[in-house]
Amino acid sequence: MKNKEIILKYQELKNKSGSHSPSLANIKEKIPEINIKVDACFLSNPYATDLFLKYFKKELINTGEINALLEFYPSQNHIIAGYVENQLELDKGNVFICNGAIEAIQAVIHRFTKGKILVIIPTFSSYYEYATPENEVVYYKLKKDNNFKLDIEDYIKTVKEVKPNTIILINPNNPDGGYIKRNDLERIINELDWVENIIIDESFIHFAYENSEMRLQSIVPFVKDKNNVVVLKSMSKDFGIAGLRCGYAIMAKERVTELLKNGYLWNSNGIAEYFFKLYSRKDFLSEYELVRRKYITESLFFIAELNQIRNIKIYPTRANFVLIELLNGLTADDVSADLICNHGVYVRNCNDKIGLEGEFIRVAARSKEENKLILKAIKYVATT
Amino acid sequence: MKNKEIILKYQELKNKSGSHSPSLANIKEKIPEINIKVDACFLSNPYATDLFLKYFKKELINTGEINALLEFYPSQNHIIAGYVENQLELDKGNVFICNGAIEAIQAVIHRFTKGKILVIIPTFSSYYEYATPENEVVYYKLKKDNNFKLDIEDYIKTVKEVKPNTIILINPNNPDGGYIKRNDLERIINELDWVENIIIDESFIHFAYENSEMRLQSIVPFVKDKNNVVVLKSMSKDFGIAGLRCGYAIMAKERVTELLKNGYLWNSNGIAEYFFKLYSRKDFLSEYELVRRKYITESLFFIAELNQIRNIKIYPTRANFVLIELLNGLTADDVSADLICNHGVYVRNCNDKIGLEGEFIRVAARSKEENKLILKAIKYVATT
Repeated sequence: MKNKEIILKYQELKNKSGSHSPSLANIKEKIPEINIKVDACFLSNPYATDLFLKYFKKELINTGEINALLEFYPSQNHIIAGYVENQLELDKGNVFICNGAIEAIQAVIHRFTKGKILVIIPTFSSYYEYATPENEVVYYKLKKDNNFKLDIEDYIKTVKEVKPNTIILINPNNPDGGYIKRNDLERIINELDWVENIIIDESFIHFAYENSEMRLQSIVPFVKDKNNVVVLKSMSKDFGIAGLRCGYAIMAKERVTELLKNGYLWNSNGIAEYFFKLYSRKDFLSEYELVRRKYITESLFFIAELNQIRNIKIYPTRANFVLIELLNGLTADDVSADLICNHGVYVRNCNDKIGLEGEFIRVAARSKEENKLILKAIKYVATT
Repeated sequence: MKNKEIILKYQELKNKSGSHSPSLANIKEKIPEINIKVDACFLSNPYATDLFLKYFKKELINTGEINALLEFYPSQNHIIAGYVENQLELDKGNVFICNGAIEAIQAVIHRFTKGKILVIIPTFSSYYEYATPENEVVYYKLKKDNNFKLDIEDYIKTVKEVKPNTIILINPNNPDGGYIKRNDLERIINELDWVENIIIDESFIHFAYENSEMRLQSIVPFVKDKNNVVVLKSMSKDFGIAGLRCGYAIMAKERVTELLKNGYLWNSNGIAEYFFKLYSRKDFLSEYELVRRKYITESLFFIAELNQIRNIKIYPTRANFVLIELLNGLTADDVSADLICNHGVYVRNCNDKIGLEGEFIRVAARSKEENKLILKAIKYVATT
């Protein structure tokens, strides 16, 4: 490893970012000597980004319509929610638009939960970090020797024992990509219908599949009338538009009303509003479906190749990323620093993730060309 | 008035927008038969919009840099805050970045206030609407026969009697444009230094002036070390970028830390982050200062012309808008409907503003050309 100083600078930046990774732009600005070629920390479909940019250029830039979107106020929350309600065939008033899914995580935890929150770990850190003094966070740990797969029986049993006010299920889960089958999730929801808040985070659901048909497996149609279920959705990942800050949450009308009474009036920007309109358009969605399937297919090949590499263990995933355990003395600090500094490949060091014992990194699938670079770099770092 | 049906449609849209006006885009979509020529409801400097668009095109569109801003995650709150801290010469940690100033209004009221909030009326409705059950809103009414000017002595006396936990001062005030001189505001802050939360909203401060030098009169340098003062700032108006959702709040470091511990991590979009960088650049700011002064000057001429029109009374303003009282039997409903339907001029009907007795509309200054259209339309409607 040639550059100890660079690694120290990176560690400093990482420490300032809390339990998240510093952004690529931030790294580029603060450590310009790092030449990042692939951001494999970033859980986003690059083909979907290309598709959005095509529409953006054609409909906003070439027409000059962008000007009005930047100058004037966007529409209020409930108006933008209408586009999502149309697309998902939901009743008016069931959608809360948010400035990235993380805004809804904050809002839902702060406004609706009290008492015990059962959080499955490893997980996305905001789910326990945003707990308030009124909450008691109880962890349900996925078992490494069960490949971090959720044991449905055991989970239901635990919920019945713990009697939490709130349970959270990320499907597929972050950071391991573990997927709960549609039938199993329906069973959990049915058996635990007395839990006041069942939060289901479907931010990665577009990357999941149950068979080669690759049909979208969202739980939304099943929970339409269930007042205790909140479904959270980031659009950043599947649609490749993290810079726009688009997300939504599906919940009972009374909950949406309660949130809007307390803020969130103009929380979308003009380009986000444009995106939500696209999201309700058949022409855009039929093109999107092609890039969704293309990306799932590329990701499958990528993961199959990763599985060939010595000294690492790939955990089963149905998301666009894999949790990799480093074996034979490799450490997450060393490997992630080596990858970024010497190979330009930025991966997620999972050292700060609670519920993971061992040395882990998380690696996102990217475009076909980028995947080749990632594979080459990981192979080199892990085996030489 | 030719089109009763249009007016009814407009009223319906207005009713759905709560205590705010429906956006221009929303009106255009829902009532396409209305041909709006000037949005004089919109309190924004159009010359500043042109300036931002010039930079946006040169630096983001022509270079292709826009792609990365839409694809990748923006920086975290504290990083973007750094640009504002540099520009305002504040210590690190004193700025909270928000997704439009309204997000900070919500956050500050919900997190820091309890007990009595003294709200000056008329005002921006969110200040009382976002009060929680823990708050008691007490109104301090500006006197119409004093031209809605804040009586400093009387205000200080009232605060001492009411002993509120929180006081809110919008300077210049919305919807009347009344301005509290720098010296007077300093006196209020000094005499009321025992008030736990002094919230000063400077969203329109760039349009205020004390003399023909037109120097910026922000209170920020004076309150740097005052832990009980929070200064809120929308960037939508002065910089003409409402679609970007940019705002910030200046407050004690412990308050910023408290907010960030509970969310608001990635609440800026990629283009907002670009704007905040511009806001810390000397080249951009020196060009901006020219368009700020140009707009103030144009607005002064506009208001002088409005003052010539019969049957309306113009209240003194040092903002980019005027509160207009309609006299001799004119009503706000009729005049605003007539203006939008028959003249394409959209103004703010103030019928839903508490603390205003009489018939009022609020009219924004726009570009020189648009101001001519507004003047002509108001003259026609008010006098024929």
